[in-house]
Amino acid sequence: MGDEVRVLAFAGSLRAGSFNRSLLRAAQERAPQGMRIEIFDIIEVPLYNGDVEAEGNPPAVAAFKQAIAQSDGLLIATPEYNHGVPGVTKNAIDWASRPPGSAPLGGKPVGIIGASPGITGTARGQSQLRQAFEFTNSYCMPQPELLVFKAHEKFDAEGNLVDTATADYLGRYLVALGDWIRLFASR
Amino acid sequence: MGDEVRVLAFAGSLRAGSFNRSLLRAAQERAPQGMRIEIFDIIEVPLYNGDVEAEGNPPAVAAFKQAIAQSDGLLIATPEYNHGVPGVTKNAIDWASRPPGSAPLGGKPVGIIGASPGITGTARGQSQLRQAFEFTNSYCMPQPELLVFKAHEKFDAEGNLVDTATADYLGRYLVALGDWIRLFASR
Amino acid sequence: MGDEVRVLAFAGSLRAGSFNRSLLRAAQERAPQGMRIEIFDIIEVPLYNGDVEAEGNPPAVAAFKQAIAQSDGLLIATPEYNHGVPGVTKNAIDWASRPPGSAPLGGKPVGIIGASPGITGTARGQSQLRQAFEFTNSYCMPQPELLVFKAHEKFDAEGNLVDTATADYLGRYLVALGDWIRLFASR
Amino acid sequence: MGDEVRVLAFAGSLRAGSFNRSLLRAAQERAPQGMRIEIFDIIEVPLYNGDVEAEGNPPAVAAFKQAIAQSDGLLIATPEYNHGVPGVTKNAIDWASRPPGSAPLGGKPVGIIGASPGITGTARGQSQLRQAFEFTNSYCMPQPELLVFKAHEKFDAEGNLVDTATADYLGRYLVALGDWIRLFASR
Repeated sequence: MGDEVRVLAFAGSLRAGSFNRSLLRAAQERAPQGMRIEIFDIIEVPLYNGDVEAEGNPPAVAAFKQAIAQSDGLLIATPEYNHGVPGVTKNAIDWASRPPGSAPLGGKPVGIIGASPGITGTARGQSQLRQAFEFTNSYCMPQPELLVFKAHEKFDAEGNLVDTATADYLGRYLVALGDWIRLFASR
Repeated sequence: MGDEVRVLAFAGSLRAGSFNRSLLRAAQERAPQGMRIEIFDIIEVPLYNGDVEAEGNPPAVAAFKQAIAQSDGLLIATPEYNHGVPGVTKNAIDWASRPPGSAPLGGKPVGIIGASPGITGTARGQSQLRQAFEFTNSYCMPQPELLVFKAHEKFDAEGNLVDTATADYLGRYLVALGDWIRLFASR
Repeated sequence: MGDEVRVLAFAGSLRAGSFNRSLLRAAQERAPQGMRIEIFDIIEVPLYNGDVEAEGNPPAVAAFKQAIAQSDGLLIATPEYNHGVPGVTKNAIDWASRPPGSAPLGGKPVGIIGASPGITGTARGQSQLRQAFEFTNSYCMPQPELLVFKAHEKFDAEGNLVDTATADYLGRYLVALGDWIRLFASR
Repeated sequence: MGDEVRVLAFAGSLRAGSFNRSLLRAAQERAPQGMRIEIFDIIEVPLYNGDVEAEGNPPAVAAFKQAIAQSDGLLIATPEYNHGVPGVTKNAIDWASRPPGSAPLGGKPVGIIGASPGITGTARGQSQLRQAFEFTNSYCMPQPELLVFKAHEKFDAEGNLVDTATADYLGRYLVALGDWIRLFASR
């Protein structure tokens, strides 16, 4: 790791106006000194299919895995669908977890955040997603946690994060994430 | 519901040689009297995207949701990826859960089974998938549970279920599922 | 089942001023016609110990299991501790699940609710608790779900439920629970 | 941290002949050079009760929390009851998590293992337990994982671990846990 922590971020929603895409843009703008956040759009990553993989990674998958490999850590903003992790979010991880033992996710520090219109702020979706990183031997930061509930009240119509308390908390979250990533980089 | 229980089944793996596809074929062959199992291939169901949905359901999604609506219950054979539900399996449910309140999944009885080469037999994948059906107000059968572990020892090279104990258990599972579905049909 | 649905309720907190105890009292007062809610205090149920069980159930355990056996269904109000089900709540279920195959929980309909001061309203605690009832072959009502968040704003100092919206929702929840229990009683 | 890594271990079962107690004794005997494993018996830790806590920690709780505070990391051997974490295991963590923000669990590295007679080797119990440590800001080692399935075939009648493959794996697990703990100690 160089002087700067390079964070690869992606949102687990394909919708253009997604709160989670907006949340990542807000994070990018508020990245603390010494951290650069690059956002990867997973919209071209197809559904995982072992037969396809056996023929070689599709271009978007190869690009995604390379971007992970070149990063110092991940930041994932995930919605919650049906009390759990969206298929969209999990599918991206399913590709990146391959092959077991030499996947780019192995040993990678991870921060998980999420935004939703409901009151639970993606709590259950985040819990399920964390379980995936046990298998991949990635290091999820346990605290702080960022649950953006009632997201429609926190962003304006252009997707700008206008809620001051959330913005401040996001800033502190990113500082903590930087410390977490540096801890493992020094390993 | 007529005299026959109509079960819509799908496998949460797109690979042609998937153990879970094989498991559903075995179930189809062993369906007890009074139960018909139709297998739906979700390979054409795209990743969920709210913008796409707003333009109208893609054909495969519309067909999937109609097949669910016309069934008396579901049977899902899911792998476990990364200690959880595969993105592929969850994504199909994410589409079928829409729109909340009038989705075809509402009030539908569900059986969840799974096969994997490891020792835990998709236990964690099944647990996460069950949580989705809390939100959709579907009725998951709690017991018996079918965890096909060391699946490579239970199927032959052509995907036939050759392990007698597993085959017998599968037969009993399907009888229990039929009873579970009939319970709600009489509602 | 007679004309009246008999619900056995317990709170997964031992604290006298517990929000979840208060929530059950509110439920008892609002029980719809045709439902009687009896509250069992689990404070004397000890920690599960297989050696103790082998000598015979302690009196509080025997009373708890008998009360479950004589009920038509359960209503559990659980806090969330440390992102999950409290040891107190789970321990009561661990006793009641014994012995496998002939436990009083088998085939019993269950409603799970919860109250907490935070914003997620025990969502994660409830999710973990539901998983227990897969094993015991109990029937958890999937919807509606009742997550009493910011509980300190919903109850007065005497533990009375003073938030009208929550009280109305609780009333509708209990009607749905009665329907759910009757469905299985007619089995 | 001195030259030696001090690990505090406890089993989430109160039964004298518990496989998980036996597993910890096997770990203690196989502790790699530079690691000392102390086993704490939680049998005197009562059920969590906020009213009791307000009067002061019971002696066993105070001793448990002090032992955690003086350790460099934890090793927990947990059974799985009813598809989840036992009430006994979780209850010990519920006490040790108090008060939030200054609990001895904060920033503590943790290893979770488990043994059970079934085929899933406590997989679901371990998953639920890991979620608790998100809240307490403890650092669970994601890999390797140790699931001792069919435990009755791995231990003899005196509780000695006689299965060579499991014993070897346990040895490697402890080396990895030592590395994990040292990583955070250097923080």
